[in-house]
Amino acid sequence: MTGTLTIVGLGPGNEAFITPEAQGAIDRATDIVGYIPYVKRIAPRDGLTLHASDNRVEIDRSIHALEMATEGKQVVVVSSGDPGVFAMASAVFEALEDGIRDHPEWAALDIQVVPGITAMLAASAACGAPLGHDFCAINLSDNLKPFALVEHRLRHAARGDFAMGFYNPRSKSRPTQFGQVLDILREELTPDHMIIFARAVSTDEQAINIQRLGDATPDMADMRTVVLVGNSGTHVIEGTVIVNTPRSQMDWVPS
Amino acid sequence: MTGTLTIVGLGPGNEAFITPEAQGAIDRATDIVGYIPYVKRIAPRDGLTLHASDNRVEIDRSIHALEMATEGKQVVVVSSGDPGVFAMASAVFEALEDGIRDHPEWAALDIQVVPGITAMLAASAACGAPLGHDFCAINLSDNLKPFALVEHRLRHAARGDFAMGFYNPRSKSRPTQFGQVLDILREELTPDHMIIFARAVSTDEQAINIQRLGDATPDMADMRTVVLVGNSGTHVIEGTVIVNTPRSQMDWVPS
Repeated sequence: MTGTLTIVGLGPGNEAFITPEAQGAIDRATDIVGYIPYVKRIAPRDGLTLHASDNRVEIDRSIHALEMATEGKQVVVVSSGDPGVFAMASAVFEALEDGIRDHPEWAALDIQVVPGITAMLAASAACGAPLGHDFCAINLSDNLKPFALVEHRLRHAARGDFAMGFYNPRSKSRPTQFGQVLDILREELTPDHMIIFARAVSTDEQAINIQRLGDATPDMADMRTVVLVGNSGTHVIEGTVIVNTPRSQMDWVPS
Repeated sequence: MTGTLTIVGLGPGNEAFITPEAQGAIDRATDIVGYIPYVKRIAPRDGLTLHASDNRVEIDRSIHALEMATEGKQVVVVSSGDPGVFAMASAVFEALEDGIRDHPEWAALDIQVVPGITAMLAASAACGAPLGHDFCAINLSDNLKPFALVEHRLRHAARGDFAMGFYNPRSKSRPTQFGQVLDILREELTPDHMIIFARAVSTDEQAINIQRLGDATPDMADMRTVVLVGNSGTHVIEGTVIVNTPRSQMDWVPS
């Protein structure tokens, strides 16, 4: 049997957010590869081998998946959210690129990416439509880029009056940078600008915290939080807790 | 029975991309409201009334949905892709905001947004992982914003070295603006920068056209096309047709 490698997005946590396309790939798999908490979401069954690995070994995991697919297995790499948004798809393709000269057979592999619901869009849905106009997605971690590039992109996003979604705002190893991020945003935007902290979106533990930028503090975010920032028109609809970014910006003038 | 209003994303076209969460809302609905081609995707059944309406009547459609939910119906507004990304969620919330003083009962309505797979991320999955790093989503239509704001955001996105996803690049009523968009991008970025034209993503008619920015022409896009632009590191992996944006930008220096 010809091997396949499918990189599948499991969505942000709620099993009802997994598409039939993703579930079909999981149901046909002989081997599931992924970070421990995501592999835990897959139901064990006869004929299916689960290969769970620790965080920060994305390239090793990807090589393992490529090798098993080459051996003829039906391999599924699971990712949370969407595999193409700060997740496993780019890692698999980097491993492929690094190894393709030594393993020319990898070029003929059937590799597919199955999109999923990414946390930023689940968070947006959970509080209204704060990303209803042009927006940016920024990974705030400086594991794979200098913090100067995070700052550069934050300033361009703010000056472009984009709404924003932030992944990985804060972790134990990066306790202070999110404070710097808030300071940069406050230099560029007004204190009344909306910021939303969406924790554990789509799960039973979901918590939505809607704030003004002027009142936001770093401790409002942790590793399970996606942070959304509105554009200049984003607001809470009076009489509700719905955050909306109007579709129209016809009154925009260059500053 | 208490009425509900659920704004549901049907994804980009492939029925296997509709989440169980979205399908569940459709299965419980008494009334489906939406643009004609999206309502056509819903299977008729006893007890379900389909209300299909033309394009550009989003606010009328939203008021109708709010009124039916107030009457106690289980109303689902269908959107393609994700309802929070250039789709129906913001329209419903605008209608709610405009009408809430005359209809204070709307404030108590149970309104939910169910996210879906948005075209940009389905397009990204179809060609690899071009949005694997920080990215922007921009609606190129100037129906609801001045073209000057489109240009302003394009320049900030390019100067921030964001990857980009463009919705509504070109239509019969806007045949020339996409040429201006390409000109702006060519002023800001190198001719070797990657641009991908993804038409009818996830359907049987899907067509992926991978180009250098220097070779891109306006006729490569139409209303069914999502356009993706890479960042400075995006490239095709040698020996494959996979487009990848590396996860690492550790070598970035301010220009």
